Amino acid sequence: MAKFKELIKSIEKTNADLFQKDFLLTWDKSPEELEYVLLVAETLKKLYSKNISTRCFDSGLAVSQFRDNSTRTRFSFASAANLLGLTVQDLDEGKSQISHGETVRETANMISFLTEIIGIRDDMYLGAGHTYMKEVGEALNDGYLNKVLPQRPGIVNLQCDIDHPTQSMADLLHLKKTFGSLENLKGKKIAMTWAYSPSYGKPLSVPQGIIGLMSRFGMNITLAHPEGYGLIPDVVDLAGKNAKKSGGSFNVVNDMKTAFEGADIVYPKSWAPYNVMEQRTELLRANDHDGLKELEKQALANNAKFKDWECDRDKMDVTKDKSALYMHCLPADITGVSCKEGEVTAEVFEQYRLATYAEAGYKPYIIAAMMMTNRFYDVADLLNFMKKRDMPRVY
Amino acid sequence: MAKFKELIKSIEKTNADLFQKDFLLTWDKSPEELEYVLLVAETLKKLYSKNISTRCFDSGLAVSQFRDNSTRTRFSFASAANLLGLTVQDLDEGKSQISHGETVRETANMISFLTEIIGIRDDMYLGAGHTYMKEVGEALNDGYLNKVLPQRPGIVNLQCDIDHPTQSMADLLHLKKTFGSLENLKGKKIAMTWAYSPSYGKPLSVPQGIIGLMSRFGMNITLAHPEGYGLIPDVVDLAGKNAKKSGGSFNVVNDMKTAFEGADIVYPKSWAPYNVMEQRTELLRANDHDGLKELEKQALANNAKFKDWECDRDKMDVTKDKSALYMHCLPADITGVSCKEGEVTAEVFEQYRLATYAEAGYKPYIIAAMMMTNRFYDVADLLNFMKKRDMPRVY
Amino acid sequence: MAKFKELIKSIEKTNADLFQKDFLLTWDKSPEELEYVLLVAETLKKLYSKNISTRCFDSGLAVSQFRDNSTRTRFSFASAANLLGLTVQDLDEGKSQISHGETVRETANMISFLTEIIGIRDDMYLGAGHTYMKEVGEALNDGYLNKVLPQRPGIVNLQCDIDHPTQSMADLLHLKKTFGSLENLKGKKIAMTWAYSPSYGKPLSVPQGIIGLMSRFGMNITLAHPEGYGLIPDVVDLAGKNAKKSGGSFNVVNDMKTAFEGADIVYPKSWAPYNVMEQRTELLRANDHDGLKELEKQALANNAKFKDWECDRDKMDVTKDKSALYMHCLPADITGVSCKEGEVTAEVFEQYRLATYAEAGYKPYIIAAMMMTNRFYDVADLLNFMKKRDMPRVY
Repeated sequence: MAKFKELIKSIEKTNADLFQKDFLLTWDKSPEELEYVLLVAETLKKLYSKNISTRCFDSGLAVSQFRDNSTRTRFSFASAANLLGLTVQDLDEGKSQISHGETVRETANMISFLTEIIGIRDDMYLGAGHTYMKEVGEALNDGYLNKVLPQRPGIVNLQCDIDHPTQSMADLLHLKKTFGSLENLKGKKIAMTWAYSPSYGKPLSVPQGIIGLMSRFGMNITLAHPEGYGLIPDVVDLAGKNAKKSGGSFNVVNDMKTAFEGADIVYPKSWAPYNVMEQRTELLRANDHDGLKELEKQALANNAKFKDWECDRDKMDVTKDKSALYMHCLPADITGVSCKEGEVTAEVFEQYRLATYAEAGYKPYIIAAMMMTNRFYDVADLLNFMKKRDMPRVY
Repeated sequence: MAKFKELIKSIEKTNADLFQKDFLLTWDKSPEELEYVLLVAETLKKLYSKNISTRCFDSGLAVSQFRDNSTRTRFSFASAANLLGLTVQDLDEGKSQISHGETVRETANMISFLTEIIGIRDDMYLGAGHTYMKEVGEALNDGYLNKVLPQRPGIVNLQCDIDHPTQSMADLLHLKKTFGSLENLKGKKIAMTWAYSPSYGKPLSVPQGIIGLMSRFGMNITLAHPEGYGLIPDVVDLAGKNAKKSGGSFNVVNDMKTAFEGADIVYPKSWAPYNVMEQRTELLRANDHDGLKELEKQALANNAKFKDWECDRDKMDVTKDKSALYMHCLPADITGVSCKEGEVTAEVFEQYRLATYAEAGYKPYIIAAMMMTNRFYDVADLLNFMKKRDMPRVY
Repeated sequence: MAKFKELIKSIEKTNADLFQKDFLLTWDKSPEELEYVLLVAETLKKLYSKNISTRCFDSGLAVSQFRDNSTRTRFSFASAANLLGLTVQDLDEGKSQISHGETVRETANMISFLTEIIGIRDDMYLGAGHTYMKEVGEALNDGYLNKVLPQRPGIVNLQCDIDHPTQSMADLLHLKKTFGSLENLKGKKIAMTWAYSPSYGKPLSVPQGIIGLMSRFGMNITLAHPEGYGLIPDVVDLAGKNAKKSGGSFNVVNDMKTAFEGADIVYPKSWAPYNVMEQRTELLRANDHDGLKELEKQALANNAKFKDWECDRDKMDVTKDKSALYMHCLPADITGVSCKEGEVTAEVFEQYRLATYAEAGYKPYIIAAMMMTNRFYDVADLLNFMKKRDMPRVY
């Protein structure tokens, strides 16, 4: 791991400004800003490993709103808040008066009087999650500018319909650590591919987040999926443009093995086809249970045609030196372990199991870095102060 | 905002003793005690705005028990606890063994071994909420006197069947700030009026809290509601007596516009008629679903006769200088926004929207002040210590 | 209460090593280790009573996983974590992705990146709870040894199918305080007896925990239950061996009054027969609702034959000097209070009510001591440091 001083120097060198800016989509940020977040995350991890407290809040709330289930991100958010001294307060819509017909504008202000950060997961409806986060942000601007709020809480996207930046940034940090530097990622081939799963309706935000982010750093990206399993077209376009700009490449194929050929990294993961998600969104909105059942039946039947989209030894063997890095956001559908037939064979998963855990282990620090860069202007200075203060985390 | 030193001086001057006394009903407290809470809340807000930590607990629980939904009060309670250094632990009856037939006396002690504050919302049943809070208080006395508890936690009423003191006190602070001082409220006319809502069963505690509190400060109160929509008679009587004593007045009318005439402040808000709440309480207790449905149907049909009880421009125009201050505890039923026809027109609400947000923004500080005055004998001294300590809240 | 210095001296004298060792079963620990936990708990209680902060973490999570309802233990765990500076994060399986088929091995790591302690309650299925805790422990070992986790969180058993160590250890501390010392418990007779309850399916872990623990300290234990209401045979065997080794005795009778004869301590508490729990486990696993209903009906009918297994004055009168200490883990089924006919008469319970509350009051300190001895090698030194630091808990 890099030395503390080197990390601070690198942070000071980045031309990054994330102060008081929401973190909703990685492609809204410059490469320097993304690197800045990685460096702050690494520094926080370093201080943690040296048992140095990184508390920078004596009080303050970190509000979480999970409109979908979560283990990893929930615990990562809680860990990040706790690491900086914030207290998590969950906005549980079932226990609130939001069903009384309260507006987003109002709720956003009501939960923010003493709040520093709001983390939101809203990934169920296409066209909704990102829009909702922007709406919350505008409401907070309105409240802050009109002096209703003493501070303007920052928003961290904990997964929306478009992007999953805390995941993709943790993945990027994992790649940086595995390959030595962001520079070293240039020219590396990553295969982001669909994989078979016995479930349906999985969000598109992980593959979209991956192609949207990795295309910023000169990587050669191959997106692979069966015909009809496309992602949001705008994001695919964006990935192509990003790749061009950063000196990498981007192409789409309809065969898993082709995508794996010569790959340095593979990311096989199931998702629902874009058009299925669109139909599902409409049916969910219409509360059409029969329609949803019928859609699920069709979608699962369609999935079943592509059971050979499994990450197995045979396919791993066509990757670079037969030893591409396998990645997954977890939990993976592991054949014979968590399901009968799934995304990956037990043998391949087991080989990379600990690596995927390490990958997940970056998320608390990434979220803490997103919180910190949002709330503090001179983060390098603050980290230096923490180092000098030398307060033990555990006595 | 008043200077810190002036606030401290004013606190020192109040002849108030709230140390180790539960805050259940505002009318159990003297005007000096109520002013004391406002002053402490203002001082906490001032310190917050200057980024000075107001932590006065290194550990300790603030237990919340919400027997009804809540967003605003839940977040205000969490913010207040966090501001002072306490950790919220929610008593969720669904996840506890209380259904095993445990007595209130026992539960109250079991959750209190390391607890400083217990906040309770219990507003569903007439005759129950306040009684429950007193029962909890007696159980805590019993436990403390018998050395089962190392401290006697203080109770804060987060809304009962009779009063909603954290709301009414936040409202009072809003009025103090808007009109310059409590002194300036003397002779001001406030119209606390029923308003139409497409829902039924809303608690009586807000209007009761308002007439019970504002009548202490020499205001002229007009309570307005359709015939048959009365409040708990005892509270109405009390408001009349209070008003007399404080040099104000209190009257009841059955017309919204009459109530608005010449008013400095209007508070249009729906509630269920007292006798409907009584029937509802009996039916809820008997678990009579059909009875409840029938009651709701009747109540809604009755409500519908009074759709003209809407706060609109026409009625606002008969208030003092056509510009009375509009108040609401939120969320309001806004015509065309959160419902088809409701308590207030979108145009009037929008004019005062930010003011109602500011009104709500006092609640965290009011609750923190209630906690602090309950736990510390010399609060002025403690606030001075915080100022001198000058520990940053955000580093 | 013993002096602080004496407590520290006693801690220094114990030949105990609980550092980084899970606390799953009291019989996995030596008597010195058990005494060590009691002494640390007493010292924490002493520091609390003197308003001295015992914070030893500046950040860190204490994860709780309750697979069954809990009030007492939930609040005790929250209080203990808070007392040491840890923040509770609840793993609510309903809100997580665990239902996606995630393995225990994976979840255990995912919730542990910044976690110090994991508290688990899993008492519903015979043969499952303890096994699950060991599985979590092995997963954490795997993650820590492979550098996925920066620390190996300690596990505290908050009740499993076999033992309930936080309860039995709180009970032991209560006995130590009541009789003056652990030494004084030698030769004392404790009657752990079944009692009638109108409910069924109560876990076996409390009686098992009591006979498994009290048999370590030279007590004479009489276990009493109706024929067919036996405990897990292995635990009964173990209690017998323990008693022999520690110079006490252990016998089983099928009559409550016989068990009470000459007893210094009585612990009358209902539980489900071992074989009913075995059937129930199978039916729960098979999701056989009809079978469960039928089993409940039979079990309750069987229970009803033993309504005279009630702790009443008549039975209390055959105990030592007619004044044995009555104990219960609470909530008790009190005849005429929480049920029509139950485990204990209202009159007997009322006599000992405050004593049972005091008994429960030790639990937060016991859990804090389990956390602390797991996380710190030299706890005496740390407690000395806290005393010297003299930071007020409440300012």
